[in-house]
Amino acid sequence: MKAAITTKAGAPEVIIVQEVPKPEVKPGWVLIKVKAFGLNRSELFTRRGDSPGVQFPRIQGIECVGIIEHDPSNTYRQGQQVAAIMGDMGRMFDGGYAEYSLVPLEIVFPFHSTLPWDTLGAIPEMFQTVSGSLNQALEIQSGETLLIRGGTSSIGMLACQLAKAKGLTVVSTTRNPAKTQSLIDNGADHVIIDNGSIKDQLRVIFPEGVNKVLELIGTRTLKDSLQCISLKGTVCMTGILGNEWTMNEFTPMGDIPSLGRLTVYMGESKNLSKELLQEFIDEIEKGTIQLNIDIVFTLEEVPKAHQYMEDNKAKGKVVVKI
Amino acid sequence: MKAAITTKAGAPEVIIVQEVPKPEVKPGWVLIKVKAFGLNRSELFTRRGDSPGVQFPRIQGIECVGIIEHDPSNTYRQGQQVAAIMGDMGRMFDGGYAEYSLVPLEIVFPFHSTLPWDTLGAIPEMFQTVSGSLNQALEIQSGETLLIRGGTSSIGMLACQLAKAKGLTVVSTTRNPAKTQSLIDNGADHVIIDNGSIKDQLRVIFPEGVNKVLELIGTRTLKDSLQCISLKGTVCMTGILGNEWTMNEFTPMGDIPSLGRLTVYMGESKNLSKELLQEFIDEIEKGTIQLNIDIVFTLEEVPKAHQYMEDNKAKGKVVVKI
Repeated sequence: MKAAITTKAGAPEVIIVQEVPKPEVKPGWVLIKVKAFGLNRSELFTRRGDSPGVQFPRIQGIECVGIIEHDPSNTYRQGQQVAAIMGDMGRMFDGGYAEYSLVPLEIVFPFHSTLPWDTLGAIPEMFQTVSGSLNQALEIQSGETLLIRGGTSSIGMLACQLAKAKGLTVVSTTRNPAKTQSLIDNGADHVIIDNGSIKDQLRVIFPEGVNKVLELIGTRTLKDSLQCISLKGTVCMTGILGNEWTMNEFTPMGDIPSLGRLTVYMGESKNLSKELLQEFIDEIEKGTIQLNIDIVFTLEEVPKAHQYMEDNKAKGKVVVKI
Repeated sequence: MKAAITTKAGAPEVIIVQEVPKPEVKPGWVLIKVKAFGLNRSELFTRRGDSPGVQFPRIQGIECVGIIEHDPSNTYRQGQQVAAIMGDMGRMFDGGYAEYSLVPLEIVFPFHSTLPWDTLGAIPEMFQTVSGSLNQALEIQSGETLLIRGGTSSIGMLACQLAKAKGLTVVSTTRNPAKTQSLIDNGADHVIIDNGSIKDQLRVIFPEGVNKVLELIGTRTLKDSLQCISLKGTVCMTGILGNEWTMNEFTPMGDIPSLGRLTVYMGESKNLSKELLQEFIDEIEKGTIQLNIDIVFTLEEVPKAHQYMEDNKAKGKVVVKI
């Protein structure tokens, strides 16, 4: 089979597309014929050698969609549509950047859909990040107010749609005033231009603060986001668009308002619901949720796709279709 | 009237007990004849000049119990038992270290009790800290597991009793193995000797972690406490027995487990319930809750009381009775 292999840590050129043996099926694992997969920023970190424990050569790819080629447990039938996601896929064992991928049974999610594979390929990781952050970490409820910090990212755009569909009032932020209209078109009730400190602007709209904050910029804006919540409000840090993992100075009593909550979401497939994935795909089929796909590459173009994402050219999800 | 006045920032000797005019009643405020008050660590910070905005001379004291001398709003009748607590009392305006204290109506909490005043004096701040942390911040529920980090402090001992009364399983920590029995006698189901990292010991008892953690040591042990929670568990930092407010390095995605929650509790009287205070006092009268009072001083002895607390001699609440 053909696979994009990361031969060693380094720039996109370390990924080489070549023929390798098809993986051999083993008990507890499922062989998927890969149809498409999304590209993820964490895969750039892994390629650069920044994911602890990852050894090269490695077929990367923390997600894929495709059809069952062989499931020795007979949980799924041959030809059935499935997604596979996370659980050390593409890091501790070979992942989705290939024509076939062998993955543990527990990270397989079945679905049925008439959507094209390049659309389906954009879904699993986006779904798990947004659904996990909103439903598991923030536990959003109809009638609540939600601030999305980093509103123009593909995760931010999708989160706004899901929150609106659930009956929340949404404030989205952008650093670029020219993107205001696109946020409104995407459903945001309010847009705030983010100069790094938005708490005062936010409290003009909501004097008591908002119930929930989805923090996609990360530690750079986290303290300010914590000042935006109402009594017993929650901030969930899911993204690190700001590229800073660690804070040099953090004073819990001071940076967190009394009774305020700080949580984080790091996708784990064990927390995901098969039903919610199917519902999500159904909404996309019905057109009630719009996915934001930027570009579709081929398997041969994976190195190019990595470069494209690294150059921050993507204005939506980058997908590879096989 | 007699009052203990902090004349300037400094050591306990800056507090001088002398005659001053009785405060003049004004609308919206209530004059209390003070019967007793507890001493609090934050009052040492204020005396040293470390509370922002506090100007000297000042009558300190963030809490008191006593009887109504005059309430122009007629909300409370003369002679009625009340507590007053927080709301900048003893910092922005004169507080409880005096024979009479004039406080805003909204920080007055009525109660009725036959307990002696020195016992009642120990209650308001202890109650608000423990009740606020457990009920408001941690939202403890029957059947849950609670880790109390800093279990031998008076707050830790009281929290254990309240949590046990509500049907939780409690793990208390101490650095001193000799205090194990006192924690068990106080109701703890398990005791862990705290060498700074207890997560492994904790997971021997609860492999999945505990639902809630009351962190009384503060930033020194906070990261380890965050590793003790189960899925969607919460850590509330209420105390700073470790005396370190700020963390030099904090990595939200890493230090907080995915879906875990970090909150803080800083007492604010507006969050308190008059009903819960009365219930709490009733439980003490019935003997189902034991208060941990170390020593009772007189008003003349306030400087000595400050020194006593500063020397870390107290093994329970320090109270002043007038």
